[in-house]
Amino acid sequence: VISFANSYIFSGQALEIWGDSATLQRWLDVESTLARTQAELGLIPEDAARQIAACAQGANFDLKCLSDGIAVAQHPLVPVLKALVSLCGEPHGGWVHWGATTQNILDTAQALQIRATIDLLARLLDDVTTRLSALAAEHATTLQAGRTHGQHALPITFGFKVGGWLAELQRHRQRLRHLRGSACLVRMGGAVGTYAAMKGIGRKVEAGIAQHLGLSVPLVGGRSDCDPQAEYVAFLGMLAASCERIAQDVFFMQRTEVAEVEEHHYQGRAGSSTMAQKRNPQEAQRIMMLARLARSRVPVAFEAMVRQDEGDATLAHLLDFTLPEVSLFAASILQAMSGLMRTLRVRTDMMLRNLQAGGGLIMAEAVMMRLAERIGRDRAHQLVGGAATDCAGTGASFCEAVRRRAVQHGIEPAIVSDDLFDPANYLGEIPDVLSAVTVAG
Amino acid sequence: VISFANSYIFSGQALEIWGDSATLQRWLDVESTLARTQAELGLIPEDAARQIAACAQGANFDLKCLSDGIAVAQHPLVPVLKALVSLCGEPHGGWVHWGATTQNILDTAQALQIRATIDLLARLLDDVTTRLSALAAEHATTLQAGRTHGQHALPITFGFKVGGWLAELQRHRQRLRHLRGSACLVRMGGAVGTYAAMKGIGRKVEAGIAQHLGLSVPLVGGRSDCDPQAEYVAFLGMLAASCERIAQDVFFMQRTEVAEVEEHHYQGRAGSSTMAQKRNPQEAQRIMMLARLARSRVPVAFEAMVRQDEGDATLAHLLDFTLPEVSLFAASILQAMSGLMRTLRVRTDMMLRNLQAGGGLIMAEAVMMRLAERIGRDRAHQLVGGAATDCAGTGASFCEAVRRRAVQHGIEPAIVSDDLFDPANYLGEIPDVLSAVTVAG
Amino acid sequence: VISFANSYIFSGQALEIWGDSATLQRWLDVESTLARTQAELGLIPEDAARQIAACAQGANFDLKCLSDGIAVAQHPLVPVLKALVSLCGEPHGGWVHWGATTQNILDTAQALQIRATIDLLARLLDDVTTRLSALAAEHATTLQAGRTHGQHALPITFGFKVGGWLAELQRHRQRLRHLRGSACLVRMGGAVGTYAAMKGIGRKVEAGIAQHLGLSVPLVGGRSDCDPQAEYVAFLGMLAASCERIAQDVFFMQRTEVAEVEEHHYQGRAGSSTMAQKRNPQEAQRIMMLARLARSRVPVAFEAMVRQDEGDATLAHLLDFTLPEVSLFAASILQAMSGLMRTLRVRTDMMLRNLQAGGGLIMAEAVMMRLAERIGRDRAHQLVGGAATDCAGTGASFCEAVRRRAVQHGIEPAIVSDDLFDPANYLGEIPDVLSAVTVAG
Amino acid sequence: VISFANSYIFSGQALEIWGDSATLQRWLDVESTLARTQAELGLIPEDAARQIAACAQGANFDLKCLSDGIAVAQHPLVPVLKALVSLCGEPHGGWVHWGATTQNILDTAQALQIRATIDLLARLLDDVTTRLSALAAEHATTLQAGRTHGQHALPITFGFKVGGWLAELQRHRQRLRHLRGSACLVRMGGAVGTYAAMKGIGRKVEAGIAQHLGLSVPLVGGRSDCDPQAEYVAFLGMLAASCERIAQDVFFMQRTEVAEVEEHHYQGRAGSSTMAQKRNPQEAQRIMMLARLARSRVPVAFEAMVRQDEGDATLAHLLDFTLPEVSLFAASILQAMSGLMRTLRVRTDMMLRNLQAGGGLIMAEAVMMRLAERIGRDRAHQLVGGAATDCAGTGASFCEAVRRRAVQHGIEPAIVSDDLFDPANYLGEIPDVLSAVTVAG
Repeated sequence: VISFANSYIFSGQALEIWGDSATLQRWLDVESTLARTQAELGLIPEDAARQIAACAQGANFDLKCLSDGIAVAQHPLVPVLKALVSLCGEPHGGWVHWGATTQNILDTAQALQIRATIDLLARLLDDVTTRLSALAAEHATTLQAGRTHGQHALPITFGFKVGGWLAELQRHRQRLRHLRGSACLVRMGGAVGTYAAMKGIGRKVEAGIAQHLGLSVPLVGGRSDCDPQAEYVAFLGMLAASCERIAQDVFFMQRTEVAEVEEHHYQGRAGSSTMAQKRNPQEAQRIMMLARLARSRVPVAFEAMVRQDEGDATLAHLLDFTLPEVSLFAASILQAMSGLMRTLRVRTDMMLRNLQAGGGLIMAEAVMMRLAERIGRDRAHQLVGGAATDCAGTGASFCEAVRRRAVQHGIEPAIVSDDLFDPANYLGEIPDVLSAVTVAG
Repeated sequence: VISFANSYIFSGQALEIWGDSATLQRWLDVESTLARTQAELGLIPEDAARQIAACAQGANFDLKCLSDGIAVAQHPLVPVLKALVSLCGEPHGGWVHWGATTQNILDTAQALQIRATIDLLARLLDDVTTRLSALAAEHATTLQAGRTHGQHALPITFGFKVGGWLAELQRHRQRLRHLRGSACLVRMGGAVGTYAAMKGIGRKVEAGIAQHLGLSVPLVGGRSDCDPQAEYVAFLGMLAASCERIAQDVFFMQRTEVAEVEEHHYQGRAGSSTMAQKRNPQEAQRIMMLARLARSRVPVAFEAMVRQDEGDATLAHLLDFTLPEVSLFAASILQAMSGLMRTLRVRTDMMLRNLQAGGGLIMAEAVMMRLAERIGRDRAHQLVGGAATDCAGTGASFCEAVRRRAVQHGIEPAIVSDDLFDPANYLGEIPDVLSAVTVAG
Repeated sequence: VISFANSYIFSGQALEIWGDSATLQRWLDVESTLARTQAELGLIPEDAARQIAACAQGANFDLKCLSDGIAVAQHPLVPVLKALVSLCGEPHGGWVHWGATTQNILDTAQALQIRATIDLLARLLDDVTTRLSALAAEHATTLQAGRTHGQHALPITFGFKVGGWLAELQRHRQRLRHLRGSACLVRMGGAVGTYAAMKGIGRKVEAGIAQHLGLSVPLVGGRSDCDPQAEYVAFLGMLAASCERIAQDVFFMQRTEVAEVEEHHYQGRAGSSTMAQKRNPQEAQRIMMLARLARSRVPVAFEAMVRQDEGDATLAHLLDFTLPEVSLFAASILQAMSGLMRTLRVRTDMMLRNLQAGGGLIMAEAVMMRLAERIGRDRAHQLVGGAATDCAGTGASFCEAVRRRAVQHGIEPAIVSDDLFDPANYLGEIPDVLSAVTVAG
Repeated sequence: VISFANSYIFSGQALEIWGDSATLQRWLDVESTLARTQAELGLIPEDAARQIAACAQGANFDLKCLSDGIAVAQHPLVPVLKALVSLCGEPHGGWVHWGATTQNILDTAQALQIRATIDLLARLLDDVTTRLSALAAEHATTLQAGRTHGQHALPITFGFKVGGWLAELQRHRQRLRHLRGSACLVRMGGAVGTYAAMKGIGRKVEAGIAQHLGLSVPLVGGRSDCDPQAEYVAFLGMLAASCERIAQDVFFMQRTEVAEVEEHHYQGRAGSSTMAQKRNPQEAQRIMMLARLARSRVPVAFEAMVRQDEGDATLAHLLDFTLPEVSLFAASILQAMSGLMRTLRVRTDMMLRNLQAGGGLIMAEAVMMRLAERIGRDRAHQLVGGAATDCAGTGASFCEAVRRRAVQHGIEPAIVSDDLFDPANYLGEIPDVLSAVTVAG
């Protein structure tokens, strides 16, 4: 629940898109566009359409009063319609909501809100990827320990790590482009999706509204299929998971023992109410928290797909409740990510210190591959593994241990040359990968 | 997201327990009880404790102003503490929040809110079970078709169906009693749960606060274990699922083709904006919708258990966000259930019509058990199954078909007596079960 | 857990794709393709590649023995590699797994299994949509009650209902086409995705393998991004939800009180061990059960995206465990759906009976729209609603009630003509919708 | 899916409890106990009961053959019953499954399997807590950095950390005791829970079976309430989450940069197929992986509670599928945890090194509390925070910085005495907490 204590972590722009005023206005927009299109097609009088458009302004309505009416009617739209009809007066009010059912209006309005969210996410995502591209370029050659399963693995560069984050977000950027078309649909099929109350031109009305509002048209204007919205929520969940992954990496790199990056700590930002030394990774933690919230809503959206018959308020309302919050979480994540990345301090010195702390063990694969050319990969792996064991806990030199074992296999120690232990010599195709990722953006 | 269009479906009492004003006041209550207890134990001056108690009133604080301060500090409590310190003045303000960390205050305040919710749920649950007991008694002998896998199975009574709902809710009532103790804990271990800043009497302070606030004391006052809260959320999820089951039954029984019960349709309640004949099962649908929301939060609470080290804001905040909403959902479900059951109209005529519509096939087991005494259960099952197939789609009499086949097995037709086809004769131990359930309540 | 009692519900083809033998062979295929490609590019000797290809046949390996070795090594691939090296002999064995890491092999093999599953699903989905198209055409004009919120709403045809199912599955068919490219990726970046052990031609090796195996190439061959697989699982979840929706409709239509369709009940199919009359909707229930299993795995796949650093076995293994089962569930759902639809019996008589049982109330919208042209939609809605209330529970004629109220509004009763109460006259644009859906397939 | 490559991670004992042979035998046990009890109560002949008991041995059945029969019947139990009837011969076979329905047998058998799992978990949990108690005692005074939000917070001891894990597991131990009674229920109410086919003594039969099998008796022997099983699954999810938390801590403490503990690395355990130096935290990762699987099944069990009418195979089978796997996951987690803890190597030197690496900043609270007695907590917090900022990134001494700022506040530097910077002096009530936790076990 949003409260005085956490409201600052949410995207103001997303709150606006899904807020009460915006929702009411989108409903009214759909009603007036419905009337306009029906007038264009000769279904209702042009005067009525003009009057409806003139009255369908949120400023003419009292949200508190509507809310009270909704509580009595136990219906979200009927009190709004009654108020609109009354504003329009007779006979114009009599043409309001012609041939439509409540869910048509709510679903189409929601499509407008989804589209606005998609546009917001696209802007935020561009912002983040632009920043990550710059960071990847800046640190293309900044040495860092690559880690797998929490253990030093092979050397990488910090730019390469950022490039991995970036590539994943770029794929999401493409998915977002696709969704703008597929997830934003007019639904104007009437009570059961047959356009029965539109005198045979319901599909034309639907297409006309779609054109006016810039939305897509479904094959069937029904009320029981919401795979487009579910796909949108699934996307938000995946986007959240990707950001959570990045934030988790940033959280770890801020660990006291690691200290490779730092969030921006300005005067006035509080760490702890009792530990004055604390500089907590708050933005990273916030992203991880919001991402878990976003992910948790995906099963709800999928459940909401399993509707009964030609209409099912249980699940329609379930989706109505869930779409705003998951949209809000996703936008808030990207907003926080943008802030985090804009101000992240990179400690290249600590990256180097950590990389070097393992006494060269991180170069084991490089050494093995050199030896493998002589004795085969399998035996080389055993040899190097033995040498690593020789050193474990003894403080002995890994390089020396390898050379000693190499000799036992009849290999001259010089093969195990010093350059094998320089991380900068074992970065593989990082430059090419980074070029590819940057171009892809 | 709660909006003008759906706010009426939520429990006002739960909204109050978890609202901004209540949350702030609970924080202040914990701070003042901390001070009071520390004064009693000689850790801080009595004057300071009195002054803190006097100032720790929500009315002294401006929520908007606090919210702005929280946004700058990126910390939920520090701005509140600064305001409280300032209100207390020097030197008293200097003793505020003595030896505590932020999460201690938030967790303990939350325990108070959980307890208030448990008390609210208990009242609502008692209300529902009282109504269900009456309904079960009233319809103890009202015949109805028992159904399994969507097919008529055996006769039951409507009271028996209600008794099944009731028994499940009674088990939840017991769980709720247990949780009042186990889920409402003071947490005052300080920064890492060692009571380091309390001069050796931290556990005494914790125990004192527990006594003042009527909460329980944990073995360890840490910040990384929240299985008590997770258990509370799991309970709410189970309670929701049970109510969803009941609502689903009520929804089905309102199906046009079934029509065995009816929700209360008062003047002004809107069915559909376009279909004037509609009387929708809105309360049942609302309960099912809220229940899915409640269930969806259980995995979040379990995820929130997997905290890192001695404190983990990612997951603490995740739980802080989730507890209010899942509490709200649960209370709203029970409130709706109470309303639904108080006004539910039972159509005993339709129950009888539906029971009788199957031409006696629902009595197949009764017939089989009679024949089984002669030819064994297995062969009797085959005989009766064959007779049922004989009738399928032909409109032939099931009774006659059984008798015909019985004769083929050398059984006199009189064995298949008419009383076997009277549902009232095959209700088993329904009266005893109902007595047991009623007593258990 | 798959057991002797439920194994028949699972797709044999999917079990084969993901079974032990197939998994081992896919690992070996990837190893031998790696060697072949490296030989083509001059990285390893051609003789070695040929020998590896010759030995990399599942028949050369003992699964039980490998399994024991894996238990000791606590590693899935190392014992397989050791056996392969040994089979190849020296010196060829020394070139096995050159420059690769375990997860490269597992991920690429998995991509092959995902692709095989996608091909299987495509075949099954085509099967289902072909059948649904035929069913929609056959019942294009079969009258049925359209229902919303469990209540009769407007007339539809059974073909229209089927068309709605079909349109949703067609969108999934398109998604499946897209996934065949995006979700099936080679991953050959080595230990941390830098291709460090491939002497600068790692990306060429990766591209070569992709060409040989017909897979796609990622921008970065890393180990910590699995959004493609997560998207695949999300798709399976959505596909499952759509099938669950269809099965739920079919389940309801089989309700004793509804009886509009029937599953195929052959001799030997058991309904109940005790109720001989039972003909349960087993296929529909099975689909719903499997669909819930499939949906439940989506959050797991999304969780598996949040990997740490450059490699994370916790989550890689979590996905490795989950992909086979969710693939299996999805294929089993479509297989059951195919069987269900091929043999479904449609009871057009019962559809008509149910449609007519409501005394014409289902035509309320049609009546309202006629009156609306005279007195406006809003007043017409009230008029018709009042007439419906007049009839509720009294058995009075809805048509008469409407005419009576119409007169009170100064409307001649003849306006409420008899043709308004003929469902066949109020089917809207069903024919056009069905044409569009059929063409889309 | 369990495969040759991962089967070693699963508990053999749990696999046995839930395996095909055991499941079949439990079904047969319930059938024979049903017959025995009914004979005792005079409902069926004693001879029949004896014959049924004699024949109801798994060895008399062919699982493959049953499986084939089940595929044809599409029913899990009917083919088993047919085989049992045939084994018993006439007339005894005619008394098999008297008055019961399939789900009665399956549910009661499942209760036996749940109880066996609970007993297994209890043994494993005792094993783990015993080991943790010893570890806590051994390291009661081993200094370690306490961390919150990934940052050094306050000093603790490693024993205290272990004590926190232990306290959480002890609460689970108590929950497990409770579940042994509440989750293991006989269900013998027949087709719809009315005991209709038992001639009025169904509840006595049920009670008799409960006594014979050591199970509990429900108030209603229905088929649509499964909150006891859902509660069991919720418990397993919580237990898994607690173990995941512990494993996550152990994983972090094994990080290359932290190195405070080490898993047991024996000869033959493979780290990486390419990086010979790797010693991965495999047991910790396995626990975390299994725990996520276990947690993911909780929503499935809760969904399975929402059954329709008096019986619902969709959800009964969903639970039947889920209970074995979640039981298996939980037992495998505890088994791995037991192994992990028995062999964990604790690096007290590294704990001390990490604790001291922060230049005393970890003592900030201790310093603040000393100063707070002079200038109030709030001002002391600011003073110490300023001093921490003075040092950040400069390498300056924290102690000196504090003294410098203290003087500016008119406090003599001696107040900031050296003993304030000794972590051993600021461990709070760790000894008392550890005593309490140990006693509680």
